[in-house]
Amino acid sequence: MQKNNFFDSLWFTAGVSILIGLVVYLLPVPQSLYEIAEAVPARDAQRAWTLLAIFAFTIAAFILKPWPMGTVAFIAIVMLVITRTLGIGPALSGFSNTVMWLIISAFFICRGFIKTRLGERVSYLFMKKFGKKTLGLSYSFIASNLVISPAMASSTARMGGVLFPIIRSLAEVSDSKPENGTERRVGSFLLFTTFQADMPISAMFMTAMAANPLAVLIAREVIGVEITWVQWMIAAIVPGLVTLAVLPLILYKLYPPEIKETPEAAEIAKKKLEEMGPLSLIEKKMIGIFFMVLLLWIFGSYIGIDATTSALIGVCTMLLINVLTFEDVKNEKIAWETLIWFATMVMMAGQLNTLGIIPWFSDIVTNAVHGLSWQMAFLIIALVYYYSHYFFASNTVHVSAMYGALLAVAVAVGTPPLFAALSLAFISSLFGGLTHYATGSAPVIFGSGYIKQNHFWGYAFIISIVFNIIWLGLGGLWWRVLGLW
Amino acid sequence: MQKNNFFDSLWFTAGVSILIGLVVYLLPVPQSLYEIAEAVPARDAQRAWTLLAIFAFTIAAFILKPWPMGTVAFIAIVMLVITRTLGIGPALSGFSNTVMWLIISAFFICRGFIKTRLGERVSYLFMKKFGKKTLGLSYSFIASNLVISPAMASSTARMGGVLFPIIRSLAEVSDSKPENGTERRVGSFLLFTTFQADMPISAMFMTAMAANPLAVLIAREVIGVEITWVQWMIAAIVPGLVTLAVLPLILYKLYPPEIKETPEAAEIAKKKLEEMGPLSLIEKKMIGIFFMVLLLWIFGSYIGIDATTSALIGVCTMLLINVLTFEDVKNEKIAWETLIWFATMVMMAGQLNTLGIIPWFSDIVTNAVHGLSWQMAFLIIALVYYYSHYFFASNTVHVSAMYGALLAVAVAVGTPPLFAALSLAFISSLFGGLTHYATGSAPVIFGSGYIKQNHFWGYAFIISIVFNIIWLGLGGLWWRVLGLW
Repeated sequence: MQKNNFFDSLWFTAGVSILIGLVVYLLPVPQSLYEIAEAVPARDAQRAWTLLAIFAFTIAAFILKPWPMGTVAFIAIVMLVITRTLGIGPALSGFSNTVMWLIISAFFICRGFIKTRLGERVSYLFMKKFGKKTLGLSYSFIASNLVISPAMASSTARMGGVLFPIIRSLAEVSDSKPENGTERRVGSFLLFTTFQADMPISAMFMTAMAANPLAVLIAREVIGVEITWVQWMIAAIVPGLVTLAVLPLILYKLYPPEIKETPEAAEIAKKKLEEMGPLSLIEKKMIGIFFMVLLLWIFGSYIGIDATTSALIGVCTMLLINVLTFEDVKNEKIAWETLIWFATMVMMAGQLNTLGIIPWFSDIVTNAVHGLSWQMAFLIIALVYYYSHYFFASNTVHVSAMYGALLAVAVAVGTPPLFAALSLAFISSLFGGLTHYATGSAPVIFGSGYIKQNHFWGYAFIISIVFNIIWLGLGGLWWRVLGLW
Repeated sequence: MQKNNFFDSLWFTAGVSILIGLVVYLLPVPQSLYEIAEAVPARDAQRAWTLLAIFAFTIAAFILKPWPMGTVAFIAIVMLVITRTLGIGPALSGFSNTVMWLIISAFFICRGFIKTRLGERVSYLFMKKFGKKTLGLSYSFIASNLVISPAMASSTARMGGVLFPIIRSLAEVSDSKPENGTERRVGSFLLFTTFQADMPISAMFMTAMAANPLAVLIAREVIGVEITWVQWMIAAIVPGLVTLAVLPLILYKLYPPEIKETPEAAEIAKKKLEEMGPLSLIEKKMIGIFFMVLLLWIFGSYIGIDATTSALIGVCTMLLINVLTFEDVKNEKIAWETLIWFATMVMMAGQLNTLGIIPWFSDIVTNAVHGLSWQMAFLIIALVYYYSHYFFASNTVHVSAMYGALLAVAVAVGTPPLFAALSLAFISSLFGGLTHYATGSAPVIFGSGYIKQNHFWGYAFIISIVFNIIWLGLGGLWWRVLGLW
């Protein structure tokens, strides 16, 4: 980074971040926020507004990067407490978030893949089979994800625990210098494409994302519509498969890998595999742990074991059978950095809802679409729902906070109920690609260091437009064919 | 460690730890626990008993060390969840504990002292003035602590944030190899003595420990006794000063430093200080931050800034003015290790109370002392209160859970109210030295690696007997003179 450039200087980046927060802070608190806040004791218009200002500063500082994200997170926590916006207890609550510890466990599982060299071996196997073209590799990862997705509701576990370790190993064997310097050789493209493709995959099956059943439940409660597993799948399959087909091609153009073709890949991989010889004992241990955790992620819900506990069981096993030492755990710096900034984001995003900003925002949308045709009204609602995810660090929290309210408004202005319920439910997965804190897998992918933040946000925004066109446009036609409207 | 020795082998240490947990688990749940549990919805006899078993395993494994403490902590969390004793949410709750983040901040502040070499300089200043004898050094640290204690209610901040960085630096400049290998050169003695001396110091003033005002409040509520700041101080000053006078002498005999006299210390220190030259800019920055945090710890309560927030303000400032980089924060492995095991201990100890084990235990004590003379009854109550701290990871939680109940029993059997209220309140500080998780400063001191766990527990137990003799024996006589009984 050239610190000589004024726009990269601390004065500019810190100044703009603080200015953005300060402007929001100094704006008068809207009267409508006071009205919304009065309805529920936990809400508080004044504190909600200060939180919004600190949130705005944090996001600005995450993007402009005057300081590392962890420093910004500590500053945000301190500001929340000294402005009396939150007590120190609630301000630290993100650190015990269960998704947080699934993410941290994913980093440890990835370390196990790297340390045992199993990740390397699997990468060579992928290279041998699909490695001639980087594009082909991306499709092979997406296909793998699609296969396990209906059975594995935690997209964080799928991306962070299953695909991330393999792609990361593959990136490291392919890229000579896998650090930020050579962002685009292979790892950046593969990680970002697979991550973005996980959003339509999450949207394709009711059981492919943790918040999907919640949306079904809310739809039943709020507008009395029943969505079945098959109905969901049929409605989603066409836009879903189209998205998965075109997404790698688009990113291949926009955010190309530096190495596109390696005709000799199969040969190299074969040679490397021969060099590695047969599976070592520690690799076999890691395979055993991996399949145990995979089975727990798939079937754990039947015996009441959630995704975080499943991952922690894997971590304990790795430690007990000496795949990892506790020293490895302490050394996993990315885990601790992610802990600090993501816990802070999760906490702030949750409090935006609790203190009243999100309900107030939903109310504004409701008033705005009043009197429009249902098509126009629904388009606005869908886009607002989509892009309001910049304010969220969890799909589940976003669905809990806004899905029901916006669905009710959509139906009230005349949108066909099943159409509205399904398309908003699909968006509840798609928006998870917007930012590096948007959903549990995002900080894992981002933590790899392969994708710079401005690239992450920029390309993610372009992809979100593609998602909207395919799902609301083509999807809309398909749902017409299905008779949803 | 000699792994050849059977008693140090994994089979033995893991086997015994698991056996202890299993035995507790297989014991029939006492009928009386069911009765106690029925009274309050949050309690549950079956789950409480399983928690007790897992707690027993954890403590045994912490002592016998089949695995690192962090591994044991992960195992405990997993076992709690898969036995349905706790949900994954409550099982992770310790990670957002506010004292937890004060401890973590203390490690970062200590890193600031080390990195800027300010700790080294202050150590040489202490050496120059008191350094001829190691014993003299220990008294100088105790005196410094005593002076700030009435104004600084967080003993974790006092020990972890103020004294620890200096003693640790001093140990590092004095000891050639400051790691576990040469446990006792200087650092072990100084750290352990100053830590243990913090317990009587915390007991000496109503404002020297966070849970003291809570005890005053509970005494007022439960037995209608008013304790004033001056009353407290007068009652505590005699046993307090006697303890501080003899404690370093006792540990000097029992747990002696290897280097006892360094007649040339003043000369060496003087020379080193000359070598260091005048204060560097970064040292001046660190001094400024240190005094800012010290002032916040002392006066923060008047402006509603708690000890954790004060420490985080210090951490943010260190990061913003480049005393620390965020890389230093991520690298602070001891902080992350302590996070994992101490958060787990805090969580389990809190849940022992919530699920009903502690209320059940108080009930047993009440029944046991029924019909005894008040002197005998009170002695039993005091000792039970003291040593039940093996089950706690926070003075505040222990005071909340047991102080009121035991005080009521003591007064009911005829103990003079003010006498009972004060002596139990003093014990509420003294028991903080028992284990390496007993109070916030304990994991910080333990985390330094200077004191092996078996030494920590063993000498702490001996010191606890000394504390009891001085406070209940000599203190009892003094309180007789004061007319408390």
